[in-house]
Amino acid sequence: MSGAPLFDRLALIGIGLIGSSLAQAARQRGLVKEIAISTRSPETLQRAEELGLGDVYELDAATAVEGADLVILCVPVGANEAVAKWIKPALKPGAILTDAGSTKGSVVDQVGPHVPDGVHFVPGHPIAGTEQSGPDAGFPTLFDERWCILTPPEGTDPAAVEKLTKFWEGCGSTVDIMDAKHHDLVLAIVSHLPHLIAYNIVGTADDLEAVTKSEVIKYSASGFRDFTRLAASDPIMWRDVCLNNKDAILEMLARFSEDLSALQRAIRWGDGEQLFDLFTRTRGIRRSIIEAGQETDAPDFGRHGKPGSANLAE
Amino acid sequence: MSGAPLFDRLALIGIGLIGSSLAQAARQRGLVKEIAISTRSPETLQRAEELGLGDVYELDAATAVEGADLVILCVPVGANEAVAKWIKPALKPGAILTDAGSTKGSVVDQVGPHVPDGVHFVPGHPIAGTEQSGPDAGFPTLFDERWCILTPPEGTDPAAVEKLTKFWEGCGSTVDIMDAKHHDLVLAIVSHLPHLIAYNIVGTADDLEAVTKSEVIKYSASGFRDFTRLAASDPIMWRDVCLNNKDAILEMLARFSEDLSALQRAIRWGDGEQLFDLFTRTRGIRRSIIEAGQETDAPDFGRHGKPGSANLAE
Ligand SMILES: NC(=O)c1ccc[n+]([C@@H]2O[C@H](COP(=O)([O-])OP(=O)(O)OC[C@H]3O[C@@H](n4cnc5c(N)ncnc54)[C@H](OP(=O)(O)O)[C@@H]3O)[C@@H](O)[C@H]2O)c1
Ligand SMILES: NC(=O)c1ccc[n+]([C@@H]2O[C@H](COP(=O)([O-])OP(=O)(O)OC[C@H]3O[C@@H](n4cnc5c(N)ncnc54)[C@H](OP(=O)(O)O)[C@@H]3O)[C@@H](O)[C@H]2O)c1
Repeated sequence: MSGAPLFDRLALIGIGLIGSSLAQAARQRGLVKEIAISTRSPETLQRAEELGLGDVYELDAATAVEGADLVILCVPVGANEAVAKWIKPALKPGAILTDAGSTKGSVVDQVGPHVPDGVHFVPGHPIAGTEQSGPDAGFPTLFDERWCILTPPEGTDPAAVEKLTKFWEGCGSTVDIMDAKHHDLVLAIVSHLPHLIAYNIVGTADDLEAVTKSEVIKYSASGFRDFTRLAASDPIMWRDVCLNNKDAILEMLARFSEDLSALQRAIRWGDGEQLFDLFTRTRGIRRSIIEAGQETDAPDFGRHGKPGSANLAE
Repeated sequence: MSGAPLFDRLALIGIGLIGSSLAQAARQRGLVKEIAISTRSPETLQRAEELGLGDVYELDAATAVEGADLVILCVPVGANEAVAKWIKPALKPGAILTDAGSTKGSVVDQVGPHVPDGVHFVPGHPIAGTEQSGPDAGFPTLFDERWCILTPPEGTDPAAVEKLTKFWEGCGSTVDIMDAKHHDLVLAIVSHLPHLIAYNIVGTADDLEAVTKSEVIKYSASGFRDFTRLAASDPIMWRDVCLNNKDAILEMLARFSEDLSALQRAIRWGDGEQLFDLFTRTRGIRRSIIEAGQETDAPDFGRHGKPGSANLAE
């Protein structure tokens, strides 16, 4: 797509995987006239400039948002409040302020109070990412065929929500609207719990004495390696997610643990029927995810060539 | 590679993912002169014939192994004992009898007693697979750049182990030798626990009322979908693994649960430092796995084109 730009000036605060991908998508698809980029460290800012991600580069976030009609916070959720306080005096009346954070209730609570009158605050979360971080990890197609969830607080100007929706559609995504609390519950099961489980199992393997780390590495193609992708995600981002979606995460963890106890019992008692039932019931969901266009249907995530074609390591 | 064939007649009992891949690898690389295939059901046998996987097709496993100097059992581990009893009278003296089963202690216990004198019994396990089953899922490069573990019982003829090693090397793998008990412990952490955790989390998500199945599917790209691959694996195979490696699996499950409780506590008390430490410690292992040639280094398992290239769903 490529019509008239939706915004005159996009300010991206934070230019890691998400900020960089947004800059590239917005540029490539003509969604904005100008891109201002701000990040905490001079090193990252310089790298963003080397990559040509924007038009203006500022260490001072307040300067970056001046004159911007769309401001997107792309920093770890724990940093949102400080950034909001910082940019508050510089936000242009009528601007849309949004974010990409993986938790939403906390953003409403921590950023909301600092939004000046006349600025439209529409929290958001693109359901797209990889395990990599930093400006080099970004790419313009990250949001294609993915969902983006917006959680506008009650009373938000519908026109602002509409305009932000157009922006995300321009980036290739489909937008869903829900309240922040429901977002946090949904994400706790589809994203936060999977990451925690992955971190946990990799930690468990790392601690064993009876099985060496080199054995874990050598034989990891038998299943373990699948978990190492999520467990290689950014530690600060995930610390912040845990600290900012505690209740929903603890709720999902409790359910997972309950189910795991039942599974453990079935193994201990050799209850083949119960095992078979669980292992059968879980098969269908992958098919549905593939049909929904959210997953590849190639075996082994397409890591293997098939058949006859070259393998990964060749 | 392609020298003189190592064996005159290979008999494959079971022709699913593993049997089919072995047939194709052995054929393509000239490792055997003739391939005899046997499987339980006429439908699967016919499919194997349509795919041209072998030279001889037999419903009677005993007939298939007649004259074979290499016999590989490629059935779920729970079926190995019955098959061993069945083929026992037909095994040729001097033949090597092996298997591909994911557990090894149970195979030693259940198959060992039925191996006639003069037949070399060398249990094996290729550390390679996908989540798919059946003869159509097989492909000849499955074992390339992967490990194969052999667990010859004490007193096994070294020449037989050597010859079987050559066969697996011909299939593209590197062979490791260890005792069956250690194999079962290693595989419990690198393969069995990951599969169980994946099945479990998919089951937990499936049971929620507060989050609908359609939400889980839509937003699964945020982490959850990674687990659905393992959780789509064959239920019979995995039931049999659980029933046949109980002790090691329960041990690993107990450690995982202990660690998960500690993680839960850290979240409940908002202990950001402990969370950060765990999330940092687990990052390195993926890098090592990639360096060991057991994983792709493309972000998101290579599911995304990067950068600018086409996406999955396009
Ligand atoms: N990664 C994903 O898969 C994903 C998916 C959806 C949503 N999100 C959300 O998107 C946001 C950004 O994630 P990302 O993956 O793009 O992160 P990233 O690649 O690690 O980049 C983080 C950016 O935030 C800046 N930053 C870090 N800590 C900061 C602090 N305390 N104060 C101010 N700036 C700080 C960094 O600046 P310096 O480099 O200059 O220090 C960098 O520009 C997060 O809220 C995350 O929850 C991530
Ligand atoms: N899948 C993997 O990733 C993987 C990796 C390494 C090792 N393994 C091991 O390799 C073996 C085969 O796995 P696979 O993935 O090839 O399985 P698969 O694709 O499901 O094929 C199983 C084969 O075994 C036959 N079979 C099933 N139940 C049987 C029974 N009760 N009695 C006799 N034959 C039976 C099937 O026959 P019909 O179709 O005719 O019924 C079919 O030919 C298993 O022991 C597994 O643990 C698997």
